[in-house]
Amino acid sequence: MNEVLIKASRAGGRGARRALRSAPDFQMLPSLKRGIPECEVMDPSRVEQIDNASMSILEEVGVIFRDEIALADWKRAGAKVVGDRVYLDRGLVRELISTIPSQWTYRARNPEKSLPFGGKHSIFVPMTGAPFIRDLDDVRRWPTIADLNTFHKLSHMSPALHSTAHHIVEPMDMKVSHRHLHITYSSMKYSDKTFMGMTTSGKNAEDVMAMCEILFGKDVMEETPVTTGNCNGNSPLVWDETMLSAMRAFVKRNQPVLCSPFVLGGANTPASVAPAVAQLNAEALSALAYTQVIRKGAPAIYGHYLSTVSMKSGAPMAGTPEISLMNFMIGQMARYYNVPWRTSNLLGGAKTFDAQAGYESAMTMNAVLHAGANYIWHSAGWNEAGMHCSIAKFVVDAEMCQMGYRMAE
Amino acid sequence: MNEVLIKASRAGGRGARRALRSAPDFQMLPSLKRGIPECEVMDPSRVEQIDNASMSILEEVGVIFRDEIALADWKRAGAKVVGDRVYLDRGLVRELISTIPSQWTYRARNPEKSLPFGGKHSIFVPMTGAPFIRDLDDVRRWPTIADLNTFHKLSHMSPALHSTAHHIVEPMDMKVSHRHLHITYSSMKYSDKTFMGMTTSGKNAEDVMAMCEILFGKDVMEETPVTTGNCNGNSPLVWDETMLSAMRAFVKRNQPVLCSPFVLGGANTPASVAPAVAQLNAEALSALAYTQVIRKGAPAIYGHYLSTVSMKSGAPMAGTPEISLMNFMIGQMARYYNVPWRTSNLLGGAKTFDAQAGYESAMTMNAVLHAGANYIWHSAGWNEAGMHCSIAKFVVDAEMCQMGYRMAE
Repeated sequence: MNEVLIKASRAGGRGARRALRSAPDFQMLPSLKRGIPECEVMDPSRVEQIDNASMSILEEVGVIFRDEIALADWKRAGAKVVGDRVYLDRGLVRELISTIPSQWTYRARNPEKSLPFGGKHSIFVPMTGAPFIRDLDDVRRWPTIADLNTFHKLSHMSPALHSTAHHIVEPMDMKVSHRHLHITYSSMKYSDKTFMGMTTSGKNAEDVMAMCEILFGKDVMEETPVTTGNCNGNSPLVWDETMLSAMRAFVKRNQPVLCSPFVLGGANTPASVAPAVAQLNAEALSALAYTQVIRKGAPAIYGHYLSTVSMKSGAPMAGTPEISLMNFMIGQMARYYNVPWRTSNLLGGAKTFDAQAGYESAMTMNAVLHAGANYIWHSAGWNEAGMHCSIAKFVVDAEMCQMGYRMAE
Repeated sequence: MNEVLIKASRAGGRGARRALRSAPDFQMLPSLKRGIPECEVMDPSRVEQIDNASMSILEEVGVIFRDEIALADWKRAGAKVVGDRVYLDRGLVRELISTIPSQWTYRARNPEKSLPFGGKHSIFVPMTGAPFIRDLDDVRRWPTIADLNTFHKLSHMSPALHSTAHHIVEPMDMKVSHRHLHITYSSMKYSDKTFMGMTTSGKNAEDVMAMCEILFGKDVMEETPVTTGNCNGNSPLVWDETMLSAMRAFVKRNQPVLCSPFVLGGANTPASVAPAVAQLNAEALSALAYTQVIRKGAPAIYGHYLSTVSMKSGAPMAGTPEISLMNFMIGQMARYYNVPWRTSNLLGGAKTFDAQAGYESAMTMNAVLHAGANYIWHSAGWNEAGMHCSIAKFVVDAEMCQMGYRMAE
């Protein structure tokens, strides 16, 4: 019970009832349990065609792991390693990914806010990583830790946001060497929902894991995930040491990472939809497989960041038909492998919070919900292709998630 | 070939090629042939439940036809008529609607722009009926016939718009008595795409039919539809003389009307989704059945205008989850009856062309495309709950239709 309620219950009578009515009520919706059917644009033979193309990429082209430990791990696991290139046999990949759990429960600091996840269950997570904030005076500026605190409080207050994420905005007033500690502490302090863990380096990820151990205890973390990391691939077909060492910190402690190729469709992939999906799928599979080399049976999430680029300027675009189609297809692939799946929500490339931002964001949200994504990241605040988090858009997006929730439940 | 091309071909050589490259190219996309699956939120038993509820409404509550001719027609057709209330037996309704064609081709003035319609084929039609324009100076004012001409030209130039509709804006400088003639002439003159026919009264509808006979010839119209009318019901459960006499003018000449209950969900229907759909479905069925009393085998379209109202202000809302869900359900009902289906696209309740307009419009478009609508009306310009057509939004919406087309094809 919060302070207002406690005061109200002490006061009793009409005043108490009035206070109860006006008390802020920060209820969180449970995990979305999808009721609408998934939009499946491929018949089973097409799904197998993509799978086959991806497996051929893994076997014949291989994937670069720029990391000595990962290369040694892969050799031990039986993969063919030539220089920093790892050739993955499809049998090995299938065997490895088969031990990834398809569902689990995220344990939150407040156990009432723990979340069933995977299968039909989805969660909305706010955006992260914005180097700028567009504040309530509509000024675009460097964010501070106070701004980040505000976003964590807003995430806590929004019923359809299930997580506070981590660095929604970059707190530029914090030294880089300590920043990840302040970010994680802010997530932990200003909400009792689940949150994300920083993966900016192997060491930083170890620090976050240590903080989680203080908050939850090692035993709890062994039982069930308490946080989520994100590891981006350098598409095409490269995973680097920064991401892989952070991945190891999380996975060896039973904490899932989003295995997220960073796809700018048409720039670092072929321009057409099907081959871009085949590449992305190969990249995701190679990282998912590696999580099981690190720790067999550990949770992991099929991820991607997905944008298309303007063929005129090279700028990342949001809300395009190709992104919708790729989301439908990738959802099918993730279900084919029986692994939970992350995508990005409410993206926009607009410079400010205008009609363009609205169209693009709603296009993205609809694609994601019809595609059946589980970890629905970047669900509030994203604008200018991720360059800024808009505080006005954050609040509206959180309402949109509630709209989407009611449409899809 | 247009003038520029003719000049170019006469000139020959490099200049000609340059002119050809820079010549405006107003290509129209063919009818959208949907490739994505329909979003079906009801299993077959639920569809039968809605059908059964609607049929019970028609049998037990009846529908009011405020029109002497319709009442006489219904008596002859074997319905029970008490005062102006018509009780429709489900056997009679099923028999009548069974003769509505499920598909046809719209004949356009330019035969290359004729359109297969129904089944998997859908067309985008701009908004109509706005009493105000928001012009390029962002001034909200009464529209003129010159404004309407502009919108018809823009419709002609937009590849994903398949029709110029009719009174996109109301030309307030034209006398009401002649207005329908000027509107129809503008549609016919400024584009060679298909268009809509005014149904503001029985007489006006007769005039439009006469103009179509001049343009296309009676024989062509007997073969295949050349235009479309809209007849709104007065929900709950009333059809009036104005609409019914216009319906007769169209249907007896083999021209389809949209049989469109005017639903403000929660205001003139029950507040929850399923009973609102049951009522809307009963209303649409009663009008669809009447088209076949007028002329057996004539084309007709299952229609509706669908909004929900704010429970605070009573204002119509766009982009709500209830509208999306109702669209999914009504699409299933129309397919169950094997009748082409009209809904409304890119709706918004915003006062100006802002983020709200963008979110609401894209929410609506996605619902409509996933629901599998055929006659996708109000596809450009709609804002302020239909009170104004925004010229800026019109152009962007037409682009959005192209985005939607590429996503759904």
